Amino acid sequence: MDLNFLLVSGACAVAALLFALFMFSKIMKKDPGDAKMQEISRRVQVGANAFLAAEYKWLAVFVLIVAAIMVFAGHAADLGPKAAGAFVCGAMASALAGYFGMYTSTRAAVRTTQAARTSLGDALGVAFGSGSVMGMTVVGLALSGLCLFTYFYTDNLTNITESALNSVLGFSFGASSIALFARVGGGIYTKAADVGGDLVGKIEAGIPEDDPRNPAVIADNVGDNVGDVAGMGADLFESYAGSIVAAMSLGFFAYRADPNMPSMVVLPLAVSALGILCSIIGSFAVKAKDESQLQSALFRGLVVASLFVAGATYWLCNHAFKLPAGVDGMNIFWATISGLAAGVIIGKITDYYTSGSFKPVQNIAAQSQTGPATNIIHGLATGFESVALPVLFVCAAIWVSFHFGGIYGVAMSAVGMLSTLGISLAVDAYGPVADNAGGLAEMAGLPKEVRHRTDSLDACGNTTAAIGKGFAIGSAALTALALFSAFCTKAGELLKASGSGADMLAPDGTVLLDINSVNVTIGLLIGGFLPFLFSAMTMRAVGNAANKMVEEVRRQFREIKGLMEGKAEPDTQRCVAIATEGAIKQMIVPGIMAVAAPLVLGKLLGVQALGGMLAGALVSSVMLAIFMSNAGGAWDNAKKHIEAGAFGGKGGPVHKAAVVGDTVGDPFKDTSGPSLNILIKLMTVVGVIFLPWFI
Amino acid sequence: MDLNFLLVSGACAVAALLFALFMFSKIMKKDPGDAKMQEISRRVQVGANAFLAAEYKWLAVFVLIVAAIMVFAGHAADLGPKAAGAFVCGAMASALAGYFGMYTSTRAAVRTTQAARTSLGDALGVAFGSGSVMGMTVVGLALSGLCLFTYFYTDNLTNITESALNSVLGFSFGASSIALFARVGGGIYTKAADVGGDLVGKIEAGIPEDDPRNPAVIADNVGDNVGDVAGMGADLFESYAGSIVAAMSLGFFAYRADPNMPSMVVLPLAVSALGILCSIIGSFAVKAKDESQLQSALFRGLVVASLFVAGATYWLCNHAFKLPAGVDGMNIFWATISGLAAGVIIGKITDYYTSGSFKPVQNIAAQSQTGPATNIIHGLATGFESVALPVLFVCAAIWVSFHFGGIYGVAMSAVGMLSTLGISLAVDAYGPVADNAGGLAEMAGLPKEVRHRTDSLDACGNTTAAIGKGFAIGSAALTALALFSAFCTKAGELLKASGSGADMLAPDGTVLLDINSVNVTIGLLIGGFLPFLFSAMTMRAVGNAANKMVEEVRRQFREIKGLMEGKAEPDTQRCVAIATEGAIKQMIVPGIMAVAAPLVLGKLLGVQALGGMLAGALVSSVMLAIFMSNAGGAWDNAKKHIEAGAFGGKGGPVHKAAVVGDTVGDPFKDTSGPSLNILIKLMTVVGVIFLPWFI
Repeated sequence: MDLNFLLVSGACAVAALLFALFMFSKIMKKDPGDAKMQEISRRVQVGANAFLAAEYKWLAVFVLIVAAIMVFAGHAADLGPKAAGAFVCGAMASALAGYFGMYTSTRAAVRTTQAARTSLGDALGVAFGSGSVMGMTVVGLALSGLCLFTYFYTDNLTNITESALNSVLGFSFGASSIALFARVGGGIYTKAADVGGDLVGKIEAGIPEDDPRNPAVIADNVGDNVGDVAGMGADLFESYAGSIVAAMSLGFFAYRADPNMPSMVVLPLAVSALGILCSIIGSFAVKAKDESQLQSALFRGLVVASLFVAGATYWLCNHAFKLPAGVDGMNIFWATISGLAAGVIIGKITDYYTSGSFKPVQNIAAQSQTGPATNIIHGLATGFESVALPVLFVCAAIWVSFHFGGIYGVAMSAVGMLSTLGISLAVDAYGPVADNAGGLAEMAGLPKEVRHRTDSLDACGNTTAAIGKGFAIGSAALTALALFSAFCTKAGELLKASGSGADMLAPDGTVLLDINSVNVTIGLLIGGFLPFLFSAMTMRAVGNAANKMVEEVRRQFREIKGLMEGKAEPDTQRCVAIATEGAIKQMIVPGIMAVAAPLVLGKLLGVQALGGMLAGALVSSVMLAIFMSNAGGAWDNAKKHIEAGAFGGKGGPVHKAAVVGDTVGDPFKDTSGPSLNILIKLMTVVGVIFLPWFI
Repeated sequence: MDLNFLLVSGACAVAALLFALFMFSKIMKKDPGDAKMQEISRRVQVGANAFLAAEYKWLAVFVLIVAAIMVFAGHAADLGPKAAGAFVCGAMASALAGYFGMYTSTRAAVRTTQAARTSLGDALGVAFGSGSVMGMTVVGLALSGLCLFTYFYTDNLTNITESALNSVLGFSFGASSIALFARVGGGIYTKAADVGGDLVGKIEAGIPEDDPRNPAVIADNVGDNVGDVAGMGADLFESYAGSIVAAMSLGFFAYRADPNMPSMVVLPLAVSALGILCSIIGSFAVKAKDESQLQSALFRGLVVASLFVAGATYWLCNHAFKLPAGVDGMNIFWATISGLAAGVIIGKITDYYTSGSFKPVQNIAAQSQTGPATNIIHGLATGFESVALPVLFVCAAIWVSFHFGGIYGVAMSAVGMLSTLGISLAVDAYGPVADNAGGLAEMAGLPKEVRHRTDSLDACGNTTAAIGKGFAIGSAALTALALFSAFCTKAGELLKASGSGADMLAPDGTVLLDINSVNVTIGLLIGGFLPFLFSAMTMRAVGNAANKMVEEVRRQFREIKGLMEGKAEPDTQRCVAIATEGAIKQMIVPGIMAVAAPLVLGKLLGVQALGGMLAGALVSSVMLAIFMSNAGGAWDNAKKHIEAGAFGGKGGPVHKAAVVGDTVGDPFKDTSGPSLNILIKLMTVVGVIFLPWFI
């Protein structure tokens, strides 16, 4: 029975991939517009490819080194070639998802622009379709990989062991490694191009955004794709895979004495699998005829999918599986639903703090009247304040899910939150396509109503992007927590097996992480500052890369005769190359830090200090990430609120003050904040994978 | 023998008070300058008095309510009238120290100005003397209170019990309550006046800082005294008392089975007492003839005092006391010294990140060339980065002190760090006096060389203020940790006594705070966001109060005829009243939050969740506080670096960009950042004091 569900889950994963292919071919059949539009679009495609090629070259080296370590040092660390194989496949699957999603989005943008010439509804269809391709590719590849490795490593579920599940975890580790590079590198790329281009173009030269005379404009468009599509996709691929594997491991540990244990291992896969089908159903509900329906259309899709997931989970928990003795299906159901509900609520809270329709953003706009300093102060204050409620709801989800399902329940609530990823990622990844479509309309000199239509798609996309970011952080927190539980459980097992650490065990058999012991305290404090250091590095990286971009754009304005008059073409490829090089170079140090920190501390101070460090990093990262993402989003929309006519509108002194806040917010919301999601998950996965080294 | 040391400690405390009185009378004998200077100085004195009177009215109400709760609800909670009495005395002692320190500093400023008419050395003497009065009053009152209550509550050390020490802890709680109001209220006051005055005066009206035509200028000067003298003093009073009481409690718990236990209780008092004498010795080493010797003179004083403390501690640990069996005096010595050394090192690191002589600040100044946005981005990045090293050294102190002396050792390292407080606070509190002296010289229209001398005193004061802030945070972290250990130990005792919580105990008898248990995790996360919420409130508070100030200054410029021409007087008292009212009003909500949060969570989710919350708040507060203080200091000095001639100097576009960063940094470094020191200590003290309620 359990085996059937595993196979059905695999089938659903394949269905997601087929759906993605179907949507892709549907998009490609659309009219790609006139020759000029196609030419601009081609440049963005080439630029995006160039970045991915450079990034993946680095990645290949990194992945091979880590895989080699896993194979050769594996003997001592209980890792071995199986885990290394899954690791490589996880990395490849995530890379492939990013590549395909970006391949689609860079082609969908121009078709969205063309569709916007006729109607808003058609344009939404293309843009959202492209988002769906990303969403479905991510869930499809992640789930099929997990099902495959589970099937083979457990001998068709007949031989579920700790070491087998550890090897499956390698898949998640592979995904994490890619995510680090994609999220951090992509984040640096997109903001270096954006900030650098704006500083010279908008502020110094006084030309509008997306003006074809600005040499950085193509790099900026590429950045939307590599950062917001591929980066976000890789981030959530990791969360998705990580939460499922964590739940599988915890299900094994908690119920291994029971003959029905396999059902607890397969359940997370099954919930995710049915979540895919529900997401497909939900995506049919996304339809809008005019502007006013836009946002509700996207939200409707998410709610429809969530309701179907709730029903499907109810069935799975209560009727489909034979659960271990003493496990009440309804309890697992409630645990899963708590995460699903928390995700939607956190999204709505993020909306409140970052949308121009509510008081916080309007207040920041009003404070811009006394200049950039008060704009910044109030933006920071809003960001600080916005941390409380999302964290409180994460806590509520933890409390509820633990109350009903113990540690396994907490992991299932992460699975529940991410079960609708197929559609929630689509809602999110449609934004950059709309953004690019607008840029294309501007650069190709299309009529005003086209730009107006893409603008309303884009504005809505900004809100959904903010919601998506809230969702990404919430799910990262729960996933990291689930992985952390797996860490504690596994560490306890290993300590018991080694026979040396009886005083390091809690009564429940997990490793004892008593805050009031010196190593754990030191770990907590060190973990606490790592996200700050990481953020400093990523912020600086954007600054450094943006500076190079500024110099290049200035040089071109100065040296290319006739550029400002529109008689000569800017050298956009040079800017693309600079952004690429900057991003790749600058992501190495923070990347190494994320992988090395748990290894070094675990070796130096042992497993309890490492546990403390992971907890400290979790606490610190979640707070900082929410603060940064929301402050950035709020500044962005405060500027847009003023551009829409408040406090003197575009071009006035209040607007200028708001632009400062927006520029500060750019690396906050698109680089440093989201990168922290990866930091906590990756450090925890590294901790789990390399645990045997520390004991 | 132990009793003798207790009495000697009390005598040293009295000596500190006598030294303060001696310095005070020496300052008062100095020439207070001409009639105009005296008149301006009188206004600042009146304004400062008005604020303290308003603040202390609120405080009296608060203290009486809490004392009443402690007396009446004390029966159930093992608090009672003894603890309440100590609480009231602690509050009064801290308030008195603040009042006397401020009384002195507001009178010393004008005498510093007058002395600067003749020589720099004389001016330094007066300003540093005023700082010494503050420093010695704080340590004198704190230590004499602690000695007194220890003497009476333990029946001359013959009957040291948990309940007696708990009552002594009431003294520390009283000090914490005052600190909250003094630090938060004072912080809001000083920045509301500063930001509000600058926004209209410097930016809108284009008149220089400290111009007598600006109605907010007196309020600004008052703010320096209430925020940087009284607020800082109350903050460190609390750390000082808290760290000593925590060490006493832990000494009792750890060694109560041994007949020599009392020596471990008296040792923290004795180290602090000899620290006072060493500080007095050190303060004689502070002498400078010209500018170049200034900073080294102050640092020399601190180093001399530290070396003497090291010697005194060696003697105390190895020869003076009869220690419990198995305790090696050298171990306690090293534990104490680790804190002393960490304090000096953290101060130096803070100096590196915030002084214009080093790369970080120069880099921020350079980045101001591309406008305020890049200035802000790099200031934030510098702040983020600056968290790592200080926390690492706090960790090192924890590791070393625990290695040598266990939990008692950690508490002793906090005592060691604060043992030189008499002089380190003097070095710090001399800054605002120099700052005020400069303002007075400007307002009284004194010759340029006077202003030049006070400026070099002030510039040096800025650096020492930054170092003082680093020291305040470091000591707050160690103190909070020591109090947290006391919390865990006491909670364990109470759980054991109640007989109900065997599964809630760690093997060492303290309460079990396993991170991997759901309540602790939830507590950690909730504790993690509280400092963010608290910072949002204090940042907003400054903004709101500053806005009122802006309106008032604008009104006066508009309505008072002849003000701008210097023919009419501004209504400075109105501005003082606005700042006072704003500060008092805005500090209530954050204040209530700090006291209520541990009570509510402890009642709702129990003692383990509360422990998690305290740890989460500790981690989050320390990081945020260092980030904010250092970012603020760095922005301030980046501006000063440009004013000194870099990148086009004062008045240019680069300077304007740097002013934005400085304004953002003001509430960071003087309000929100330092307030977090209070938040962690106060929450932990509340947790310890009210522990019986939660079990």
